[in-house]
Amino acid sequence: MILPSIPLFDEKSAESARIRQQRLAKPMGSLGMLEALSIQLAGLTGNEHPRFHQKEVIIMAADHGVAQEGVSAYPSDVTAKMVKNFLTGGAAVTVLARQANASVTVVDIGVNDDLEDVPGLLHRKIMRGTFNMLREPAMTRAQAEEAIQVGIDVVDQRVKGGMDLVATGEMGIGNTTPSSAIAAAYTKLPVEKVTGRGTGLDDAGLTLKIKVICEAIALHQPDIQDPLDVLAKIGGLEIAGLTGVILGAASHRIPVVVDGFISGAAALIAVEMLPEVKPFLIASHQSEEIGHTAILQKLGLKPLLNLELRLGEGSGAVLAFHLVEAATGILNEMATL
Amino acid sequence: MILPSIPLFDEKSAESARIRQQRLAKPMGSLGMLEALSIQLAGLTGNEHPRFHQKEVIIMAADHGVAQEGVSAYPSDVTAKMVKNFLTGGAAVTVLARQANASVTVVDIGVNDDLEDVPGLLHRKIMRGTFNMLREPAMTRAQAEEAIQVGIDVVDQRVKGGMDLVATGEMGIGNTTPSSAIAAAYTKLPVEKVTGRGTGLDDAGLTLKIKVICEAIALHQPDIQDPLDVLAKIGGLEIAGLTGVILGAASHRIPVVVDGFISGAAALIAVEMLPEVKPFLIASHQSEEIGHTAILQKLGLKPLLNLELRLGEGSGAVLAFHLVEAATGILNEMATL
Repeated sequence: MILPSIPLFDEKSAESARIRQQRLAKPMGSLGMLEALSIQLAGLTGNEHPRFHQKEVIIMAADHGVAQEGVSAYPSDVTAKMVKNFLTGGAAVTVLARQANASVTVVDIGVNDDLEDVPGLLHRKIMRGTFNMLREPAMTRAQAEEAIQVGIDVVDQRVKGGMDLVATGEMGIGNTTPSSAIAAAYTKLPVEKVTGRGTGLDDAGLTLKIKVICEAIALHQPDIQDPLDVLAKIGGLEIAGLTGVILGAASHRIPVVVDGFISGAAALIAVEMLPEVKPFLIASHQSEEIGHTAILQKLGLKPLLNLELRLGEGSGAVLAFHLVEAATGILNEMATL
Repeated sequence: MILPSIPLFDEKSAESARIRQQRLAKPMGSLGMLEALSIQLAGLTGNEHPRFHQKEVIIMAADHGVAQEGVSAYPSDVTAKMVKNFLTGGAAVTVLARQANASVTVVDIGVNDDLEDVPGLLHRKIMRGTFNMLREPAMTRAQAEEAIQVGIDVVDQRVKGGMDLVATGEMGIGNTTPSSAIAAAYTKLPVEKVTGRGTGLDDAGLTLKIKVICEAIALHQPDIQDPLDVLAKIGGLEIAGLTGVILGAASHRIPVVVDGFISGAAALIAVEMLPEVKPFLIASHQSEEIGHTAILQKLGLKPLLNLELRLGEGSGAVLAFHLVEAATGILNEMATL
């Protein structure tokens, strides 16, 4: 597939922001991570006075064949239910998006339900859930490419609509399983070190989940030099879609506020595909899901928040919008000494 | 002095919020600290559906006689300059307050400058800065009481104006010195374990600051059973004022979002005076100032943010307003399953 070209981080704008931070009416460095974030935002947007006017969270939703193995505390039909909940405004991410004055785009990229009657939903279904990766590759290479393209296309469309700051969100019962598989593949940590309880597995469920992931990796032998191979064999449609969102946003110089564990897995794939994407990423929060620390470490990202969240949906990323705006407010509005 | 009476934490409202959290459309506990915060807010306000409509940060400003010993990287006249900066909107806390849709009240409780020509400033000066605690008590017991009363009065007045959520802020060159002295007195840790570089002391300055604090404590022997004695001998006027703000807010069932190290010292004094104040406190952030961890531990508070801030002013507290509103939004607006 043809990947978008990613512009270079603009060192000159970053340097101007760094100099301005030193002149603001405060002791140098006293605003810690907000100062560093403002400098990053200047460099990635290529604007020494970055400002964001249209924040959006893009939620990719899909089902997982591997869910039938009992790797989630919830049944697969919850994916479709939550998609509806996103669009009627009763989900955590939609409540938080309203508060952040951010809009929500929900994409059916692979839910195992027609969802025909759902107003506002973007219909970009590749298939009705992945195949069961314990038995066969989660999807074909062509399907993985197609899912990435969906993410790129949705971002292109939203950028035309004015979006200048994006958060990643997802919904997919079972999706911590492919995320842990991806984390294990790239961090080379033992599967049990990057596999958690997801929405709330008990001990037996967790043991089973670890076993399923180990067996799937052993069966498919994904080639980590080839991120598309990893995505296709042990990934998920929403993860591939978010990989596309990240690549697409970076190609437009738009900062990507990355949510938790599943979004982190998508970011890992995106950076493995195009390492120059990295400066466009902002880690919103440290998830409680055990593998997230390893992903953030691998990506070299320090999360802004640590509120013991483990919900996904994009909830942590939307919360962090406020800190992105705080960082730009400080840079642009404070008096100089 | 007559302290305000503090209402009891309402276990019934807290329990209703706890039950509601379990019914919301998300795995139990998946919103971590936001869930715990929403339950605390329900209990302290006595409202199972807490909502806040008027957020304010109250900034107490004062000078410190001990500053003449060279315990700060900045000269004392910066206190008055920053007071003006708060009121013209160019300070970090005012930028962040605008973003949070919060108003800013600035109180001259002891600045060493007339500040007569400053529009919008509340003039409640007790004296032009404390005495030098290295030589004599920072203030008299009567002055400490008077300063606490200023805080209580300002809150009473703001509550009449509609304030229902308050953040603590402060400005006072030299004020990490009394804060470290208070922290050392109450945590019983060695002074060097709770004394940091403030706005940016070098090694020699830090050594001197530690020596000054040790000598002041040895000279005055503050009685930690008598928090007013501690405040008067080794405290500060803005710290006493914030103690009053905290006591006053709790008396009105208003949550107090506590900023960093100096605000933490004021909270420590308030809780030593009236332990029933504790459930009304929300720790906004973990400051970089070394003694803050010990204060939070002593208070049993877990901070919401850790952004490596060390500015004070109320900047971290105002940033945390967003998380308080996120917690209430989740509780009140999410769909139940």
